Amino acid sequence: MSDASEPKLAAAQSAALEAARGRADSYVQELADFVRIPSVSTDTKHADDMTRAAEWLAERVRRAGVPDVNIMPTAGYPVVVGRWHAAPGAPTVVIYGHYDVQPPEPLELWKSAPFEPELRDGKLYGRGASDDKAGVLSAVYAVEAAAAATGAPPINVTFMFEGEEEVGSPNLVPFIRANKELFAADLAISADGGIFDVGVPSLTVGSRGLTGVEVSVKGANADLHSGMYGGAVANPIMALSHILSSLQDENGVVQVAGFYDGIPELTPAERQAIDSVPKVEGELESLGLQEWWGDPAYTPDERRVVRPTLEVNGMWGGYQGAGIKTVLPSEAFAKITCRLVQGQDPAEVADKLSQHILAAAPAGVSVNVRKLPGNGRAYQMPLDLTVLDLAGDAMEATFGQRPFPVWTGGTVPVAEQFVSELGIWCLYFAFGEPDNGLHAPNEFYRVKTLHQGVEATIRLFFGLAENPAALQSPAEV
Amino acid sequence: MSDASEPKLAAAQSAALEAARGRADSYVQELADFVRIPSVSTDTKHADDMTRAAEWLAERVRRAGVPDVNIMPTAGYPVVVGRWHAAPGAPTVVIYGHYDVQPPEPLELWKSAPFEPELRDGKLYGRGASDDKAGVLSAVYAVEAAAAATGAPPINVTFMFEGEEEVGSPNLVPFIRANKELFAADLAISADGGIFDVGVPSLTVGSRGLTGVEVSVKGANADLHSGMYGGAVANPIMALSHILSSLQDENGVVQVAGFYDGIPELTPAERQAIDSVPKVEGELESLGLQEWWGDPAYTPDERRVVRPTLEVNGMWGGYQGAGIKTVLPSEAFAKITCRLVQGQDPAEVADKLSQHILAAAPAGVSVNVRKLPGNGRAYQMPLDLTVLDLAGDAMEATFGQRPFPVWTGGTVPVAEQFVSELGIWCLYFAFGEPDNGLHAPNEFYRVKTLHQGVEATIRLFFGLAENPAALQSPAEV
Repeated sequence: MSDASEPKLAAAQSAALEAARGRADSYVQELADFVRIPSVSTDTKHADDMTRAAEWLAERVRRAGVPDVNIMPTAGYPVVVGRWHAAPGAPTVVIYGHYDVQPPEPLELWKSAPFEPELRDGKLYGRGASDDKAGVLSAVYAVEAAAAATGAPPINVTFMFEGEEEVGSPNLVPFIRANKELFAADLAISADGGIFDVGVPSLTVGSRGLTGVEVSVKGANADLHSGMYGGAVANPIMALSHILSSLQDENGVVQVAGFYDGIPELTPAERQAIDSVPKVEGELESLGLQEWWGDPAYTPDERRVVRPTLEVNGMWGGYQGAGIKTVLPSEAFAKITCRLVQGQDPAEVADKLSQHILAAAPAGVSVNVRKLPGNGRAYQMPLDLTVLDLAGDAMEATFGQRPFPVWTGGTVPVAEQFVSELGIWCLYFAFGEPDNGLHAPNEFYRVKTLHQGVEATIRLFFGLAENPAALQSPAEV
Repeated sequence: MSDASEPKLAAAQSAALEAARGRADSYVQELADFVRIPSVSTDTKHADDMTRAAEWLAERVRRAGVPDVNIMPTAGYPVVVGRWHAAPGAPTVVIYGHYDVQPPEPLELWKSAPFEPELRDGKLYGRGASDDKAGVLSAVYAVEAAAAATGAPPINVTFMFEGEEEVGSPNLVPFIRANKELFAADLAISADGGIFDVGVPSLTVGSRGLTGVEVSVKGANADLHSGMYGGAVANPIMALSHILSSLQDENGVVQVAGFYDGIPELTPAERQAIDSVPKVEGELESLGLQEWWGDPAYTPDERRVVRPTLEVNGMWGGYQGAGIKTVLPSEAFAKITCRLVQGQDPAEVADKLSQHILAAAPAGVSVNVRKLPGNGRAYQMPLDLTVLDLAGDAMEATFGQRPFPVWTGGTVPVAEQFVSELGIWCLYFAFGEPDNGLHAPNEFYRVKTLHQGVEATIRLFFGLAENPAALQSPAEV
């Protein structure tokens, strides 16, 4: 678009914000209607409710003005897809969210029934209110309002609302792969996520990947009497201890050859940004710890989000009961997972780990390594991406303060999947706060936040429309 | 006694052996009567049977001619004590055995009822037939027969038959301590034990001691999300692996400072004797192993019986279920026991082990070490003790071949307790074979072995009488 269009866009944005404010009452009412459908994906007794939720959502997307809405099947629950592409030359965004929710149990801890939403103190209580029905509807509301002035949103929008996020999205990647042209876009926006705190916006710019192995160590073919065989038959627990001990030094620096290969150095800007994330008061004390632990070359905050880890998640072998049992066990096991960062390939790291473990096997035992499911790559947006500036502008105009970048040390496969499968960045643009009770009883969403989310999203759409050439792709950086 | 007495003793021994042969039929009949009493010490519903067994045995000891017989109380089941001291100047021996038996379960695997003894193919089947009612009665029969010629046995005999061997003899040491003068003797003889194989006599000359600790390692006060805290909070399983790994090198050589202190070098005679014990055919293959493992400075057989060990009997922490769980565990545990040999004190070894573990604790975790119950010292008779020669003569005259020394790598506290509490060696002089089904269904004792045991014991008594000055005490060696 030309510079001449900017005043027109500014006027349209004002109209859109005005339209959204006018619909404020219906927003919370409709969120309550959506929450009332118990779309619990993990429990097959809710299969009909899942269908109802998809149909309700598709209908609501249609009512927003989206001309092309379909409930598309997968091997599991369907994906609600809506396309409104009426802005030639403007960017195209895929907006991701999910209409399934966590199970509500334990029911006795809820103050009001999880699927009978109740408004108390400016908060709408109910399962899925925050995760992710408010996120999904906020995006729909924003698209609807953005079309108020000109009859269509200023960018091209494709909604992709899945029904299996709470069970690990097993069918999402195959679905995206089978429909690459349908989802071709310049950017993905995740309507699933959150901000740093109530009224304190942030932008999630990174998450860690994951890979893991299970190790089994076998000695003799049965547990033996340590009096008869002790000293002459290798002990699998001791052998496994030697192996595990060789994986990491006492500071947590991983000793597996090539483990750190390909990881880019942290930039001064990244280190500064990580250090600037507000600290949680009394966090160390709440864990019962005196001090943080780990690789002294990095700060604890860096180690928690942008450095790779190796954890033994479980280990077992031999006798675990009370008192003494003088057994020489026949086998021992360990589960190991690694959190990965930019530059690390999950399969390669698992290979290196396996090779190290097999090479470290002491005499007298046989060692087997099996890869665990659930691999994923890390996700990391460069801090200087233009889209982060545009998102920052939209949030600052809404919240009155500029968001700061935050990282999650956990693994959220979806953002990285947009990079891998569609070659686009995924901008987390969602507004739930840490106190919303996700996956817990008494989940809620603030009415005020609902409106802030819609407004910020409208502003983001117009910001993207104003800067159509500014979006980079991962291949460019 | 003077040399002049030797011909008299030889004649008395012949009369004793003759008397024993004359009573052969009643021997097996009485063993059956004894087995018929279900003296299961671990099951309180057999408390009355335990009393019956003690009374039956005391009565049988009296009938053997023993003038001073008492059922002496302990904090648990009583000890049947019989004293026949009518040989001034001759050695005094304490004969140890037990009248309690293992539970008979699983009953469905018995061909004949466990407490309805049945004679089949020259074997008397029944629970306790071999362990230890044949041993106890053989000693009584031998004393009875040894008195045939002169009206009293040629040595002074004190029977000590306990009723709690199968539950770990919890009251035996206090009982011995409270009655040291009653049991003052030159030698103990254990009528509980066995020989190498059917018709192949052996003499058990050593067993290993035991000590152990339980280690607990704590990190944070709860299991943590490895995505949130991985890299910044120490992992107790990894810390425990570092600790365990430091205890032993990959050949099984223990790295705890002072662990091997005080252990005498093996003598060439000991190494030769251990090497001479017949090998069990196909033992390694039956364990599913390619080769023995352990300290290359010693042979596998030496490592199994006269070298100390350190085994991790069990270790556990974190997630042990199926699949993946990215937990950073809050605690990890291990149980460690050591088999000990001559020269090692259980409490001292446990102290050294604890100190090593605490010193090896990495940063970021707290480590606790708790001593396990069930400590015991090793037992080792010097191979050149005169009593082993005398016992060898008695066995050779009976079996037609000379016994060889054997060791058990397990822990049998009673022999060492005679050393510690009464200052005398304990000679294992018992005749059960490895196939007798001890602690298993269809336990039996061979009729032929019953008679061999009585005859060998008679010969031992006269051998001891002929060599009154030949008995050494542990303090002398």
